[in-house]
Amino acid sequence: MPPALERLVKNLQRLPGVGEKSATRFALQILRWPPLQARELADSIALLHERIGLCSRCYTFSEQDPCTICSNPRRETSLICVVEEPGDVLAIEKAGCFRGLYHVLQGVLAPMEGIGPEQLKIRELLLRIEKESVKEVIIATSSTAAGEATASYLSGILAEKGIKASRIACGIPMGTDLKYADQVTLKRALEYRTDIS
Amino acid sequence: MPPALERLVKNLQRLPGVGEKSATRFALQILRWPPLQARELADSIALLHERIGLCSRCYTFSEQDPCTICSNPRRETSLICVVEEPGDVLAIEKAGCFRGLYHVLQGVLAPMEGIGPEQLKIRELLLRIEKESVKEVIIATSSTAAGEATASYLSGILAEKGIKASRIACGIPMGTDLKYADQVTLKRALEYRTDIS
Repeated sequence: MPPALERLVKNLQRLPGVGEKSATRFALQILRWPPLQARELADSIALLHERIGLCSRCYTFSEQDPCTICSNPRRETSLICVVEEPGDVLAIEKAGCFRGLYHVLQGVLAPMEGIGPEQLKIRELLLRIEKESVKEVIIATSSTAAGEATASYLSGILAEKGIKASRIACGIPMGTDLKYADQVTLKRALEYRTDIS
Repeated sequence: MPPALERLVKNLQRLPGVGEKSATRFALQILRWPPLQARELADSIALLHERIGLCSRCYTFSEQDPCTICSNPRRETSLICVVEEPGDVLAIEKAGCFRGLYHVLQGVLAPMEGIGPEQLKIRELLLRIEKESVKEVIIATSSTAAGEATASYLSGILAEKGIKASRIACGIPMGTDLKYADQVTLKRALEYRTDIS
């Protein structure tokens, strides 16, 4: 394999879920593109870190500080949705169903990996709650073990401070056949059933 | 989504089999990398077209002309393996089982898309056969409909010229459970069975 191709294949393998076969496929495809298209991809990668930083208020990825969400006067400032990562903000914004602000923890509690409350943006969340007139905090960490543990830790602190907290609903994903849902989800969906009478 | 991130996501979606979700996952991962690692990926993409061209003898991707395979004195020059694309050369070289030279057609016959024999490197193959002392041509195009048609077209021309041609074997892939093989493969495997007595 030509060294320049081998170098790209090695670098592409650092992407999540990309093994040697996919990386080679990607690299050969890029080689088949017009040179300008390859240059455009290279430039957009090179500019990423230069352009994007963290919003100093909600800690999501942004090209300006504060970010476009935090500085939007039409967002409801009394409602904060706490998520793990900037990608979660993108997903919720794409759904277009939330009009409040966000707070990105930059991870979840993982004591085995040395990630305690101090490593996350929890102190910053509490400071925001003190300074801003926050009425409710929606805890939208993942429904993984670590996400649940983080949610439970946060709800404890918020309860102590007398702040109203809520947790996003867990249940059967929309459009899913019941028989393919996993047992834990099914148990949750039955336990947290909603009254329709 | 920050514009710099959106631009990268759009560009990554041009890779084969990468949709919006994977592209976003890749972009967010790149953003989480150390800036130097992102720069290294960008550079390796930018350099690809500058460094790599086609070998003027076998038409595979190469940083030198002729390529390292064509200019290797230990390769058997009387044996030419004809493949569709440079990626096929990489795959056969990785298997490490072939000591001859290659000839990359740069595609397959696809009359509906306007790709006839003139659009492929077939004339160049025939010139090589005339100039070089070729004893056998192994036709290693894919076992797809287009690959088979191209193989059949090539074998016709080679027969006219009195050149020995062979086709790579088709059958059950190694390590595959017989009952999961598709019908066409199974039919081929039975038809082209080899004598073990």
